[in-house]
Amino acid sequence: MNPLPRLLVEPVVRAALAEDLGRRGDVTTDSIVAADQTAAVALVSREAGVVAGADVAALAWELVDPRIEVAIERPDGSDVEPGAVIGTAAGPARGLLTGERVALNFLGHLSGVATGTASIARAIAHTRAKVADTRKTIPGLRALQKHAVLAGGGTNHRFGLDDAVLIKDNHIAVAGSITRAVELARANAGHLVKIEVEVDTLDQLRELLDVGADAVLLDNMDPVTLRRAVALVDGRLVTEASGRITPETAVAVAESGVDLISVGWLTHSAKVLDIGLDTV
Amino acid sequence: MNPLPRLLVEPVVRAALAEDLGRRGDVTTDSIVAADQTAAVALVSREAGVVAGADVAALAWELVDPRIEVAIERPDGSDVEPGAVIGTAAGPARGLLTGERVALNFLGHLSGVATGTASIARAIAHTRAKVADTRKTIPGLRALQKHAVLAGGGTNHRFGLDDAVLIKDNHIAVAGSITRAVELARANAGHLVKIEVEVDTLDQLRELLDVGADAVLLDNMDPVTLRRAVALVDGRLVTEASGRITPETAVAVAESGVDLISVGWLTHSAKVLDIGLDTV
Amino acid sequence: MNPLPRLLVEPVVRAALAEDLGRRGDVTTDSIVAADQTAAVALVSREAGVVAGADVAALAWELVDPRIEVAIERPDGSDVEPGAVIGTAAGPARGLLTGERVALNFLGHLSGVATGTASIARAIAHTRAKVADTRKTIPGLRALQKHAVLAGGGTNHRFGLDDAVLIKDNHIAVAGSITRAVELARANAGHLVKIEVEVDTLDQLRELLDVGADAVLLDNMDPVTLRRAVALVDGRLVTEASGRITPETAVAVAESGVDLISVGWLTHSAKVLDIGLDTV
Amino acid sequence: MNPLPRLLVEPVVRAALAEDLGRRGDVTTDSIVAADQTAAVALVSREAGVVAGADVAALAWELVDPRIEVAIERPDGSDVEPGAVIGTAAGPARGLLTGERVALNFLGHLSGVATGTASIARAIAHTRAKVADTRKTIPGLRALQKHAVLAGGGTNHRFGLDDAVLIKDNHIAVAGSITRAVELARANAGHLVKIEVEVDTLDQLRELLDVGADAVLLDNMDPVTLRRAVALVDGRLVTEASGRITPETAVAVAESGVDLISVGWLTHSAKVLDIGLDTV
Amino acid sequence: MNPLPRLLVEPVVRAALAEDLGRRGDVTTDSIVAADQTAAVALVSREAGVVAGADVAALAWELVDPRIEVAIERPDGSDVEPGAVIGTAAGPARGLLTGERVALNFLGHLSGVATGTASIARAIAHTRAKVADTRKTIPGLRALQKHAVLAGGGTNHRFGLDDAVLIKDNHIAVAGSITRAVELARANAGHLVKIEVEVDTLDQLRELLDVGADAVLLDNMDPVTLRRAVALVDGRLVTEASGRITPETAVAVAESGVDLISVGWLTHSAKVLDIGLDTV
Amino acid sequence: MNPLPRLLVEPVVRAALAEDLGRRGDVTTDSIVAADQTAAVALVSREAGVVAGADVAALAWELVDPRIEVAIERPDGSDVEPGAVIGTAAGPARGLLTGERVALNFLGHLSGVATGTASIARAIAHTRAKVADTRKTIPGLRALQKHAVLAGGGTNHRFGLDDAVLIKDNHIAVAGSITRAVELARANAGHLVKIEVEVDTLDQLRELLDVGADAVLLDNMDPVTLRRAVALVDGRLVTEASGRITPETAVAVAESGVDLISVGWLTHSAKVLDIGLDTV
Repeated sequence: MNPLPRLLVEPVVRAALAEDLGRRGDVTTDSIVAADQTAAVALVSREAGVVAGADVAALAWELVDPRIEVAIERPDGSDVEPGAVIGTAAGPARGLLTGERVALNFLGHLSGVATGTASIARAIAHTRAKVADTRKTIPGLRALQKHAVLAGGGTNHRFGLDDAVLIKDNHIAVAGSITRAVELARANAGHLVKIEVEVDTLDQLRELLDVGADAVLLDNMDPVTLRRAVALVDGRLVTEASGRITPETAVAVAESGVDLISVGWLTHSAKVLDIGLDTV
Repeated sequence: MNPLPRLLVEPVVRAALAEDLGRRGDVTTDSIVAADQTAAVALVSREAGVVAGADVAALAWELVDPRIEVAIERPDGSDVEPGAVIGTAAGPARGLLTGERVALNFLGHLSGVATGTASIARAIAHTRAKVADTRKTIPGLRALQKHAVLAGGGTNHRFGLDDAVLIKDNHIAVAGSITRAVELARANAGHLVKIEVEVDTLDQLRELLDVGADAVLLDNMDPVTLRRAVALVDGRLVTEASGRITPETAVAVAESGVDLISVGWLTHSAKVLDIGLDTV
Repeated sequence: MNPLPRLLVEPVVRAALAEDLGRRGDVTTDSIVAADQTAAVALVSREAGVVAGADVAALAWELVDPRIEVAIERPDGSDVEPGAVIGTAAGPARGLLTGERVALNFLGHLSGVATGTASIARAIAHTRAKVADTRKTIPGLRALQKHAVLAGGGTNHRFGLDDAVLIKDNHIAVAGSITRAVELARANAGHLVKIEVEVDTLDQLRELLDVGADAVLLDNMDPVTLRRAVALVDGRLVTEASGRITPETAVAVAESGVDLISVGWLTHSAKVLDIGLDTV
Repeated sequence: MNPLPRLLVEPVVRAALAEDLGRRGDVTTDSIVAADQTAAVALVSREAGVVAGADVAALAWELVDPRIEVAIERPDGSDVEPGAVIGTAAGPARGLLTGERVALNFLGHLSGVATGTASIARAIAHTRAKVADTRKTIPGLRALQKHAVLAGGGTNHRFGLDDAVLIKDNHIAVAGSITRAVELARANAGHLVKIEVEVDTLDQLRELLDVGADAVLLDNMDPVTLRRAVALVDGRLVTEASGRITPETAVAVAESGVDLISVGWLTHSAKVLDIGLDTV
Repeated sequence: MNPLPRLLVEPVVRAALAEDLGRRGDVTTDSIVAADQTAAVALVSREAGVVAGADVAALAWELVDPRIEVAIERPDGSDVEPGAVIGTAAGPARGLLTGERVALNFLGHLSGVATGTASIARAIAHTRAKVADTRKTIPGLRALQKHAVLAGGGTNHRFGLDDAVLIKDNHIAVAGSITRAVELARANAGHLVKIEVEVDTLDQLRELLDVGADAVLLDNMDPVTLRRAVALVDGRLVTEASGRITPETAVAVAESGVDLISVGWLTHSAKVLDIGLDTV
Repeated sequence: MNPLPRLLVEPVVRAALAEDLGRRGDVTTDSIVAADQTAAVALVSREAGVVAGADVAALAWELVDPRIEVAIERPDGSDVEPGAVIGTAAGPARGLLTGERVALNFLGHLSGVATGTASIARAIAHTRAKVADTRKTIPGLRALQKHAVLAGGGTNHRFGLDDAVLIKDNHIAVAGSITRAVELARANAGHLVKIEVEVDTLDQLRELLDVGADAVLLDNMDPVTLRRAVALVDGRLVTEASGRITPETAVAVAESGVDLISVGWLTHSAKVLDIGLDTV
């Protein structure tokens, strides 16, 4: 997996540390642990899952004390079983204790996103569909969460309002028709901006196929309708199914033959992966 | 409920908007919706829950376009039923569409935290215990999440490493004893900093009662042991139960007589509250 | 023209003002002009061109003193003749004088970009080609410069390294072949990320047509070769001509039938549009 | 040449990189180039000129990947001929490709400023005059552009509204007279702040000589009038000629005997120096 | 003494350096001192006092030029006599001269705070009282000043409005009574937030003892009344005397038996400790 | 008095408020005071002095709650007697209480700087000398402190290392002679940068008069020597006396005939002006 550029991640990690250190740092540790004491710890998964954010956790410790050395044994995208050592950190004991919570908060949350993504990705592995994220992300963590989705075997939808056009029902209502909406978008977006359109019905889909686009979001369709939609599209558009898809319903949706199923739950309701710190 | 100071919230909301707007804003909406078009929308809960983040959502829209007027009908802390209108927003249609996702991302996530908190708070309402959050928060959102915990009827644990002392097993190991750890902390922390100590056994608790503190974190004790611990403490310390408490196990823990049960799940694994936008 | 979101522009304007105000502001004006003196000024073009940045200039004055009222008469994208009044500003004389230089620096530079763009856009208006910008922008001003390119009748290439794939000669060399490079990119980029590939020869173009992509950058080809390339592509890819195209050579390139000609000169070597401030 | 302090330059370079990397970095390179691949490149000038910004380009690469080593062979202020190697960079191939555009954008623009400055500086080298910049700079790049002017053999005018007094026609009109304006400024500015006054006529100049100042800006005077002004001043003030001076008219202006000719074109309309990257 | 986390201190030092370097750095030094010249200097106290800020001074130099090596001989909290060498710095002469003023401004001010604190701390060393700071700090320097108070042998009051409750006369007036005010605060503040209440009379103190709290601020009481208050409290609350206490009156106040005397003067009116730089 | 530009002051005030509000704002006030309660307060000086920072205090309240209206009755530069009302603030009681400390911290400190300055300015009013500040300022507050010096009737020395040349003993030692140092500086500094040179002896002064400069800093000279120096200079340079001048020794120094006496004590050791808040 390609890591995110440190230039982009570092400000997020610094903010998280500042949030935890407050105005004078770790009063408990500074009171009790001697400055020259050293320690070594292991990041141990307490349950099965997929790792994401290992580099981010390492960076948190490094920013607390550059003398802390972190070795990642299970990099982002790795499967872990209960008891697996994701990585180890060694160095000044104060820094290890002070940075622990922020390191774990990133690692646990992002691994949770990756694990949730993988649970769907694997359930639909026999289909052509990939699981995709949405813009329903935790504010401030979008790039990191989307990285975690990749770690879990998913794929990324657009990163924001500016890097692709997604025409939704409100836009269509304002424009008067799908055709008009697509024409307006095409006139404004540059040649490297893809256009996707949300449709609710097969009639809308037919109109879209006439005017053309790069992708279609088939919203809230049942598997039977999806299958008919895929047949109608016949490879001319990327097909994405969307609309309250849960891990439970994902397989039926994916088996309809769509290219993508997008799931807000991956990022807006991720369950933490339980990872703890053991002294080694 | 007291809102968080705008001075503290605004930078978080600006960052979330910048994250979504990217380098040129909402290409779709700007292409399709005329600048002078207006609209009115309602924030509608699709399920039962507790609201948190209504002001934050309003601020997101205001920062996109100050002409948007938001009226909150169910402020933070309100119960909502499916179909309930949390608030309405009216003004330029572009701004409403552009700010929608960020507004919903804050509102849905924070209401999810509040709703999860309330689910426990209500289950233990017949006990003396209150449900408390932890430092296991989503990086960058700690203050907002802790505000949401209050909205859900919970109470806040410390906000960071600097505003209270929490002596954990690692600190005790380094210090050599609970007594020594407490003495070191007491010598360093100012007179307005409380000291809480984590104990795993009743023997440790007895040692702590001898040296004194403000609160005790009774870690991973079963309800029977907790009950004995509460009896031992006999009001001399605030008692907090902790350790993988789930909504399912919370009641038994609370009935042990502890003052607080702290639950990382409130903030590290919150499920979004499903809130949508309807045109009005 | 759609303005850029204020949320994105304001930090750039604040930084420019801070750069000019330094540590104590406008010593000259504050020494000489009384605080209650008012004035009215007009932004007057001294030469023919196309306006861009009028809103940005207005924002500069507003940030210096919110009592200054700016009325834009020729919004971004307007043609101006020598002597044309682009807008007027009225209010406290101090603020008008203090903000003048920053307002003009933005307006002159961005109108220069728009005017340069328009000079090519108009020269090739009889062709199907549009003039596009590049990533050869002035550091810190990319979004504003790309907005100015739109104002001049051009179109935008990608905004950065993250919103589209552009496979260049170095990437092809590393991958071993165009085919392999495209396959690698396709596997990594999401479904809303377009892929463009740079080719130097018609043989490379043929390979690209086999593997497929969204667009081709025909680099440093003479008009005759471009024409053959366009015929080969036959509408299957967006065709972009590139490579040291100047206003002088643009017409011949455009007449080859390509969809786009991209010109670094628009943004890396823009000549200011001469705009001055007249008292009214 | 003295470099600018890294403390001041680094934030500008970080912002430029963030602008280019967007939300996930270089999708193309990360997809195609292996993380452990290395490369070496040379910054080669395609045309004759003067270098500025070599350290800035090096810093861009260093911030992308600290393992990249840059060796500058022609530091700021050096003349280069077509084909000259300004410097080389070696290290991870990904970082070299990812940082290339930002490095070149800084280096090309600043070298363009230096080269334009040198073209005038050399044309007037037989006179006592030096070419000076103005506040007509690209927003956000003032310090870097002024550094480039030094690299081209020019000299710096004031850096902002706060570090020197420059009394212009508007100020004189408000004050009622040059004398009054200078008196007001002198009373407010500290003893280390110089005062320069713009005059349009020799009568105004005579008034200024009576009241005294540090420098005079002789605005829009023809060479004959400038010569008379210089004679009138007779060394009592630094003399600066200004007003739409172009490279073509600079010599005649300089030969009038003035100390400085200031040229907005140096910074507001700089043409890029064509510098490319060759694999070595 | 525990140093403040570098993560928190570095932004403050960077801002101070940027404030001094302005837009182009140290014109004097860069003009006169060669880039390769080295030097060594000593930070020498010209008077007796207590050191604080030695690490901060070292960081200032390191941020100017990481090649500068600083060795601290008298760390924070050390007593110094006139002529004492607090530390030495060696490396590039330019950086040493450029960073000197900022390094000394931090070191002199913070050592001044520490020295002032120590003057009181030592005067009252025979009592049980400790000297405490307040929120009457220099804006932007609160954490550093409070660190300096610790260096001088003092103790820290709360760090801001959020980490402890301090109920003052205005709050009591609004609430209607001390009892009501405490009840309201107790209901809102979490279990790790201490509550202190300001009382002006012994009657108020009696009311407070009934309702309970963690600490009492005995405001503007004379030593006799303080003694009676301490007797009334009888160990049930931490007692703090406050109200225009000066170094002169501190002893009498401390001898009343209070636990703390808080003195705004420590931070709002600190006299610099005279520390100079000698070449070695 | 001209206020500092809000654009420059607002970030400093926001930082001070964030420092005080911490992570959740004013727990005490939010617990006890109802959101709809209003109040009115007066800023009352408890002692005689000179006001500075009144606008800054007003801005602090405005940023806490824009509904708070502040009326300044004694603007910066005003003399106040004990009991004088500097201004009043009215609006929501919560905001008034929450912003009080930050408002007072700015106002008290800056008025302290102004008052200290005035104490010297008035003592030497019968001489030609003005009292000037130095770069010995509190980190982060330089511009505000220098504004306060103006309010107290003083004058400003340079604002940083970049806006004027000040050649000190170390520079002279490196250059080899005063003459060489001045020549080097003159060659590098632009025509709007003044040059001042520190001299310790009359011989050095004679050398400086030969090479020329804008000002001379007469360091650590006794009044008799100063008088001889002033006679030697005979109006050719601005003369500044410096070196541990205290309010006590200032008069004798000023009577030597120098133009300026610079006093680090104004800013590095300012005593707060005691200003309190009374309910009205």
